[in-house]
Amino acid sequence: MRRIKLTIAYDGTNYCGWQIQINGITIEEVINKHLSNLTGENIAVIGASRTDSGVHALGNVAVFDTDCNIPSDKFSYALNQRLPKDIRIQESCQVPLEFHPRYCDSDKTYQYNILNRNFEIPTLRLYSHFEFMKLDVDKMKEASNYIIGNHDFKSFCSLRTQVTTTIRTIYRMEINKNGDMITITISGNGFLYNMVRIIVGTLIKVGLGAYPPEYVKDIIDAKDRTKAGPKVKASGLTLIDIDYEKNG
Amino acid sequence: MRRIKLTIAYDGTNYCGWQIQINGITIEEVINKHLSNLTGENIAVIGASRTDSGVHALGNVAVFDTDCNIPSDKFSYALNQRLPKDIRIQESCQVPLEFHPRYCDSDKTYQYNILNRNFEIPTLRLYSHFEFMKLDVDKMKEASNYIIGNHDFKSFCSLRTQVTTTIRTIYRMEINKNGDMITITISGNGFLYNMVRIIVGTLIKVGLGAYPPEYVKDIIDAKDRTKAGPKVKASGLTLIDIDYEKNG
Repeated sequence: MRRIKLTIAYDGTNYCGWQIQINGITIEEVINKHLSNLTGENIAVIGASRTDSGVHALGNVAVFDTDCNIPSDKFSYALNQRLPKDIRIQESCQVPLEFHPRYCDSDKTYQYNILNRNFEIPTLRLYSHFEFMKLDVDKMKEASNYIIGNHDFKSFCSLRTQVTTTIRTIYRMEINKNGDMITITISGNGFLYNMVRIIVGTLIKVGLGAYPPEYVKDIIDAKDRTKAGPKVKASGLTLIDIDYEKNG
Repeated sequence: MRRIKLTIAYDGTNYCGWQIQINGITIEEVINKHLSNLTGENIAVIGASRTDSGVHALGNVAVFDTDCNIPSDKFSYALNQRLPKDIRIQESCQVPLEFHPRYCDSDKTYQYNILNRNFEIPTLRLYSHFEFMKLDVDKMKEASNYIIGNHDFKSFCSLRTQVTTTIRTIYRMEINKNGDMITITISGNGFLYNMVRIIVGTLIKVGLGAYPPEYVKDIIDAKDRTKAGPKVKASGLTLIDIDYEKNG
């Protein structure tokens, strides 16, 4: 018995997110189906991040156990032969049987794209949030400094969540502007439900001048979802990477 | 009577190209429908570039004549309210009645994206050609120098074309690598049928080492389509801009 770790990229546009559900087709379900066909075993992967409907990934992670004789590094090629074009395995490798993608320490990195110009660009519409009012990127950068660190992020968490603690650590935030595209990169040890999208919605409010940058500190202190900005749309968000320094 | 010029961006994924045809929905047809509804007139635009099925645009151009009272610069906003999300008017302005988007001198710029890495990235699959063999960008740049200038591009033209001359002038070519993405930008006074896609297919052959860079000169001299590389897929191609220096 081996445990195999997959690094998975996908275009979330045509899926109801990662996790299996009855309302529509999900990435987890498609991967399970093709892995089961490939191995002849009944496989159900364990995913690291249950990305929402419309969210994309470059490096989500999932594991499964198998007794088949396919070499560990060949699952990527074999699965990519079978998977639809909007899901691509980037890497497959063997990990210790005790490795669990959600219970091992990790550093997750997300990216959010904001297209800031007068008219939307059609080829970017499924991969960015569009904002035609001019955003002040320097103010957004200033505001992002209040997000970095160990905080109770209850204000940045959708209400229908069930977690034991809303304390998380954000290690890094970067806001870059390249032409009309503003890219927000955020890394942390974990993210609450909709947390990145609410942080971005709040930073857009700052960029528009609706909130002063230092108000973000008040929002954190309030521990009240109604104080933060709106949740921006899913399709601007990409899970870039999950880094298991010691375990994976 | 005014003549209005539209600058049009679109995601070509879901269209059978620009030009009206019986086999499927086209960009020209969708714009005609919404312009006719908007103005109450029976409008048929004249397009500058009849892009192929799957090709994208940031700045294709079309004109139409109207007697309606909508201000020239407001057609963009009014049309964008009605058009599907994958077509966005970037600008509308009045031009002289004698301005014709195909018969006036122009400088057209196309861009082609090649993703060069071990596995494809799903969110880029509809906007780039994927090549997993390592491409030598320096050799591709060297080869591109033979393309620049006034040449008979018969070798780079699909056979089912009907044009009086296959001589065109390429003003500029740029090949840039940003991470795993190679972007080829090409500007000229006109392009033959499939010309950019055959040039890119030829440059990829050079990048793979199948052709030496200087062989591109022989291909041009041969005036024979069978000497050039293959036509790469449509979806890597975007019509960036059509510049009418004097007329538009």
